[in-house]
Amino acid sequence: MSRRVTVEEAAALLREADDILLLLHQYPDGDTIGSGYALAMALTALGKRVRPVCSDPIPHKYDFLTEGTEFPVFTPAFICAMDVADTKLLGKLAEQGAAANLCIDHHATNVEYAENLLLDASCGAAAMVVYRVIRALGVPLDRRMAECLYTGLATDTGCFKYPNTTPEAHRIAAELMEEGARYAMINESMFDRKTRARMDLERLALAGMQYHFNGRCAVMVITNRMVEETGAAEDDMEGLAPLPRQIEGVWVGVTLREKADGTFKASIRTGDKVNAADIAAYLGGGGHRGAAGCAVNRPLNEAVARVLEAVAARVDNINA
Amino acid sequence: MSRRVTVEEAAALLREADDILLLLHQYPDGDTIGSGYALAMALTALGKRVRPVCSDPIPHKYDFLTEGTEFPVFTPAFICAMDVADTKLLGKLAEQGAAANLCIDHHATNVEYAENLLLDASCGAAAMVVYRVIRALGVPLDRRMAECLYTGLATDTGCFKYPNTTPEAHRIAAELMEEGARYAMINESMFDRKTRARMDLERLALAGMQYHFNGRCAVMVITNRMVEETGAAEDDMEGLAPLPRQIEGVWVGVTLREKADGTFKASIRTGDKVNAADIAAYLGGGGHRGAAGCAVNRPLNEAVARVLEAVAARVDNINA
Repeated sequence: MSRRVTVEEAAALLREADDILLLLHQYPDGDTIGSGYALAMALTALGKRVRPVCSDPIPHKYDFLTEGTEFPVFTPAFICAMDVADTKLLGKLAEQGAAANLCIDHHATNVEYAENLLLDASCGAAAMVVYRVIRALGVPLDRRMAECLYTGLATDTGCFKYPNTTPEAHRIAAELMEEGARYAMINESMFDRKTRARMDLERLALAGMQYHFNGRCAVMVITNRMVEETGAAEDDMEGLAPLPRQIEGVWVGVTLREKADGTFKASIRTGDKVNAADIAAYLGGGGHRGAAGCAVNRPLNEAVARVLEAVAARVDNINA
Repeated sequence: MSRRVTVEEAAALLREADDILLLLHQYPDGDTIGSGYALAMALTALGKRVRPVCSDPIPHKYDFLTEGTEFPVFTPAFICAMDVADTKLLGKLAEQGAAANLCIDHHATNVEYAENLLLDASCGAAAMVVYRVIRALGVPLDRRMAECLYTGLATDTGCFKYPNTTPEAHRIAAELMEEGARYAMINESMFDRKTRARMDLERLALAGMQYHFNGRCAVMVITNRMVEETGAAEDDMEGLAPLPRQIEGVWVGVTLREKADGTFKASIRTGDKVNAADIAAYLGGGGHRGAAGCAVNRPLNEAVARVLEAVAARVDNINA
């Protein structure tokens, strides 16, 4: 169990610390990167030695956040995890995670591995919590910090579209824009740019969309062959999982992604009527009400059948 | 030329008026509908007789805004156009438009047909201007008005994604959420729901994407046959035009939509590097820097060739 700390207490811990390592989660997204780099810049401004680290390389689409930054190398005296709910999500940095002095997060599912935990699950993005911490540290925001925070905020809230968006998220966005965050450029590159490979992959995946239970469940399959054929990279897979659920009349959208060994993993997305976590739990996975996932260690046809079995078992009236 | 009025002056005109007709533009979108219905509700709350009217039926996706509203029928004594830059955009209500006492708008291109004009081109949505008017009228916002205004604001700013989004847009969104606007439901139905026909149409259109000038120009064609084959309705066409430009490396995205007579109309979308209006002008059309359009009265192959000719003529270095 962690000691729960307030924004002011977290800021005090950071103010007293130096040689601070900031841990980002694996498969880094806009929120962990934006949160980590914003705090790194703020702590640097306070004269501290600080370094954000990640077990995976930062995808090139975030170059505009990291470009030109240089952080010193040192033996860490204080470790702070950014947007990391569990040390399992740290990849080869799990050991550093187990020694974390502080974790700044917004996941209700945080397993409380860090000594101190600043958690606000009402925030749509960890970047909102980091925004408060930087304010409490008294560091004036500059354009670069504002762009880091804006990126975290926008990516985790689906550009203010998802239910996790709060009035505070909008008010922080307004301030970050006033600090000079190039929001239009950020939004375009986060939400409106696709590689040709991604376009092609989407087209192939849409072509194979299966409808079940009178169109209430849609299943989209992404095979290794499609990935090879289109030349899609790991980055190109991002944001595919919601597509089946976007179809009118669909209660349960499932994306089955083939793994290297020919078995599948399932991403399950649902609307108000259905709890995705229930369906995932039936298959040994977990997640949230609206989005959950699990491994389905079977070849394609059996994997689809298993998923449909889970849907039928856990969703009332899907056949009605 | 119109007399330019301030928010307070516009509110005063409305406060003194009664039997007020609110004109929405043809092919009504979220902003004209949201703006018109919000103001209608606010004026009704002030005890006035008011009625929003449109030359076209309101699409069903906006039912949640209009449902249960009932407005009286009367001989108008005051006419106010909502989000209407030109009487040409009023369809069969153009005559009423020519007699407009007031126009509330955010288009810099407003042709000043109304007696009085409240225009703020810095606003991403007319709903922002209407928000200020309702505040000036002193009518407390309720959930329904908030949902009308939120819908206008979100749809015209691409859910706060487009360059026209301002800090004020975010702050107004925050207030509308606090008044109870069901933003998650609204965003889902405005941005994240597609009919099966739309999904299928998108897939067919993506399959035929053509790349020219080393991938700097992408052309997507939507034929009548695709529309028939998928059963897509007019509503399903919305939002297709930006797709070619979303592909990485594309400077100029063109969508060619077949008309009933087998000739085409072109929607041109560009990024920073290229002026879409220039390309459209070459073909006898017009528009904005980032989005423009024109008719290309030729069969498919000739239409594509004409568009490519215009692109080559108006875009420097497209062949470099």
